[in-house]
Amino acid sequence: MKRGLFIGRFQPFHLGHLRAVEHILRKEDELIIGIGSAQYSHTADNPFTAGERIEIIMKSLRQTVDTRRVYLIPIPDVGEHRLWVSQVISYCPSFQTVYSNNGLVKVLFEEAGYRVEPVPFFDRELMMGREIRRLISSGGDWRSRLHPDAAKYLAEIGAEKRLATILKPDF
Amino acid sequence: MKRGLFIGRFQPFHLGHLRAVEHILRKEDELIIGIGSAQYSHTADNPFTAGERIEIIMKSLRQTVDTRRVYLIPIPDVGEHRLWVSQVISYCPSFQTVYSNNGLVKVLFEEAGYRVEPVPFFDRELMMGREIRRLISSGGDWRSRLHPDAAKYLAEIGAEKRLATILKPDF
Amino acid sequence: MKRGLFIGRFQPFHLGHLRAVEHILRKEDELIIGIGSAQYSHTADNPFTAGERIEIIMKSLRQTVDTRRVYLIPIPDVGEHRLWVSQVISYCPSFQTVYSNNGLVKVLFEEAGYRVEPVPFFDRELMMGREIRRLISSGGDWRSRLHPDAAKYLAEIGAEKRLATILKPDF
Amino acid sequence: MKRGLFIGRFQPFHLGHLRAVEHILRKEDELIIGIGSAQYSHTADNPFTAGERIEIIMKSLRQTVDTRRVYLIPIPDVGEHRLWVSQVISYCPSFQTVYSNNGLVKVLFEEAGYRVEPVPFFDRELMMGREIRRLISSGGDWRSRLHPDAAKYLAEIGAEKRLATILKPDF
Amino acid sequence: MKRGLFIGRFQPFHLGHLRAVEHILRKEDELIIGIGSAQYSHTADNPFTAGERIEIIMKSLRQTVDTRRVYLIPIPDVGEHRLWVSQVISYCPSFQTVYSNNGLVKVLFEEAGYRVEPVPFFDRELMMGREIRRLISSGGDWRSRLHPDAAKYLAEIGAEKRLATILKPDF
Amino acid sequence: MKRGLFIGRFQPFHLGHLRAVEHILRKEDELIIGIGSAQYSHTADNPFTAGERIEIIMKSLRQTVDTRRVYLIPIPDVGEHRLWVSQVISYCPSFQTVYSNNGLVKVLFEEAGYRVEPVPFFDRELMMGREIRRLISSGGDWRSRLHPDAAKYLAEIGAEKRLATILKPDF
Repeated sequence: MKRGLFIGRFQPFHLGHLRAVEHILRKEDELIIGIGSAQYSHTADNPFTAGERIEIIMKSLRQTVDTRRVYLIPIPDVGEHRLWVSQVISYCPSFQTVYSNNGLVKVLFEEAGYRVEPVPFFDRELMMGREIRRLISSGGDWRSRLHPDAAKYLAEIGAEKRLATILKPDF
Repeated sequence: MKRGLFIGRFQPFHLGHLRAVEHILRKEDELIIGIGSAQYSHTADNPFTAGERIEIIMKSLRQTVDTRRVYLIPIPDVGEHRLWVSQVISYCPSFQTVYSNNGLVKVLFEEAGYRVEPVPFFDRELMMGREIRRLISSGGDWRSRLHPDAAKYLAEIGAEKRLATILKPDF
Repeated sequence: MKRGLFIGRFQPFHLGHLRAVEHILRKEDELIIGIGSAQYSHTADNPFTAGERIEIIMKSLRQTVDTRRVYLIPIPDVGEHRLWVSQVISYCPSFQTVYSNNGLVKVLFEEAGYRVEPVPFFDRELMMGREIRRLISSGGDWRSRLHPDAAKYLAEIGAEKRLATILKPDF
Repeated sequence: MKRGLFIGRFQPFHLGHLRAVEHILRKEDELIIGIGSAQYSHTADNPFTAGERIEIIMKSLRQTVDTRRVYLIPIPDVGEHRLWVSQVISYCPSFQTVYSNNGLVKVLFEEAGYRVEPVPFFDRELMMGREIRRLISSGGDWRSRLHPDAAKYLAEIGAEKRLATILKPDF
Repeated sequence: MKRGLFIGRFQPFHLGHLRAVEHILRKEDELIIGIGSAQYSHTADNPFTAGERIEIIMKSLRQTVDTRRVYLIPIPDVGEHRLWVSQVISYCPSFQTVYSNNGLVKVLFEEAGYRVEPVPFFDRELMMGREIRRLISSGGDWRSRLHPDAAKYLAEIGAEKRLATILKPDF
Repeated sequence: MKRGLFIGRFQPFHLGHLRAVEHILRKEDELIIGIGSAQYSHTADNPFTAGERIEIIMKSLRQTVDTRRVYLIPIPDVGEHRLWVSQVISYCPSFQTVYSNNGLVKVLFEEAGYRVEPVPFFDRELMMGREIRRLISSGGDWRSRLHPDAAKYLAEIGAEKRLATILKPDF
């Protein structure tokens, strides 16, 4: 049984993430999607709760991915990087390979003895996530970058109004 | 879409839990299994990590349950009960009904406006969990109370030795 | 300006506390009522939130005490006793005298250079609080031990049902 | 009984805050002044402890406000916004209306079912607070922006020296 | 360079601990004394601060041990056992062998790949520590179980009065 | 017995720190080196664990300083400045004088009644530390600013690669 870990904040999960999941599942038997900074929500960088992120991911995966091969695991930050690696290991079923393009994640998991592989075909998460959040807050075209079912869900929970209000200076 | 939350510590997930899951899934479209006290492990009351508990639950469900209808969500304690309800709500996809036989859980979720239903056909979690942990630590017959695949996994990770050592006084 | 600190958990504030407040206010210009363990609620030992405790105290004081001379300050525990003293000092207006019958409070504040005086005419808080909580949970005569307006408020928020459910074993 | 919540950090409480309190008390029977970020002090943004802030507010209110209608409640941050709303509700007597000009506060309390109203006649807290802190640290004219009794108290506790030293780079 | 870790709470460090240190230093080049539960003090189980424990240990070691070969490192608990191992490793210089008679410590460090050896010639810490604390609180003969310089220091800081007051019920 | 406290983050301990230690030890009988922000590592500002910092300091001191007169004490941040002073006092053997060039440290310890003295002959920690970390990450000449044994240790643990990877944007 080969199992990989794909870790990110997924604020929100977009088509770049979806392609990455599909790619990794061609190499691994099972995939853990670790939802980092799980405890945060309602901020400019982390607008959605872990539960909302899980709904977004599930709606994005359902049509093209066998979700029985996928674990969605919220992982709260601990604020101390060395402990964070132990935290990830404790919260997840066992895995052998970590998929990440983040330098710190690479250092920490390699020091703990794991193989770390880059995420291919993947627009860089940080910038793309930030750009999508900016588009949501300003009424731009963010829907085309998400799975249609995820976009529909975000509209239902009032994502545009939430982000606009959070990002607006005092009125 | 009707979604229920079944919350417990699942140390470990046993046949009583399995029957409860099967029962709830006849009433709900989807079920969230909330794995409480997620951050703890290696103690007498919480011997297994959240990741290990997820593996045990998955192995127990796979043969008889459509796991695409189930979410496994580790939820760390916050130590303050009012905040804990908000924590549960933040970590989980939306749900309408909570399944629990615990008085405090019932009070807290009812005060927050949720419906709380007892878990039928369910041997009482606390006592049964404690009894199974005692059996594991002392080499008794704990295997018959778990799904065979879960019991096999526990044997592989050395559950008997771990529990015996944790519970043994200083040597 | 002489200011005293009367510190307790006040779960709930009863007639013994009220007499103590009246007594201290004959010796001090102003009194801080420090509501300890402020973050806890819905447990057997700490059933009421800090906000509920503030309402109970205010209703108890209003008829006989000039509340302009009184500060009600919730103080969360920090779990480390030395830091807790700094925490109390940080959360409160300056004070010179601490009123408490608790050994640890006495040691900690004396080591920090404060005068600590016993609370006279005061039935022992811990036992009395515990006894009143037991009476609330079992439908005994708890009302006669509280100020009538406090008892009325507790009835309105469903204190009896909350305590009975918290204290009841799994059903 | 109509009760409002006016929430801010009050670093320090100034004449704009005072006018806001007077305004709200014409609409509400009672007012809770929630002192946010209560645990912080001795930083550029949060120079004063919760206890010092309570003294400043009390000295500012006493001459023109019936303080028996006002609750001063320090509320520590929890770092997670959803939990913070539960924290505020737990620390305060019950209230119906929140007064705030902050977008995040508005989103969070509206999602929790509260009415949120802007604070009228109120110079914007963030900028004004920051400007006053700058003036204190640099020996500018900060006294005219505070109630005279609050300014006198700040002088007594050495606010100018504290802020100048905190803000000065290493010497 | 062979380095060992001897971990305990040392409440207080007694002659059994001293013999253990002398023994381990015959087998190791250097020894780390990890002072666990470092953040606690003024409780029945953890009466002394980490700083006081460091003074007690130093006074106990100075006459017979080359303290240049010894590191005294306070290590706060994190409350989660898996993270605690990472915490210990992060706070200490690198080491190869752990000396402990505690089952949980043995399990945790063996799972992390360390060698764990029992502490020979060593009266059982928990019971002996508890017994010594009881003797201090009740004015019994605790001095003969400590190094004379450690006993003298404890007398100077008022250990008997502190423990008696902490352990005494409300007066 | 005169004892001083020299507090810093020591990321890493360099020749400026070494000269400061030698200077202070001419005025004090013993010196506590308090290693602040002890819990952090693997970040741009705090790349090294407390344990690694202890090794670096020990290797730097050994040839010219009698380490029996020195205590190396990791002190975790508490995030609240007033509590942090209590934390420092709790973690350290008693001391009379604090050596620091930081404004906040000076204010906090003077308010707690300690003497605070500047660190003479000492290039400013913050800038120098930051500059050295930049040099390590970019392969510049950082070795000449550290004790040779400390530099050798940093090379062995792969400090250049760690800092380069942490500081590099996503690849």
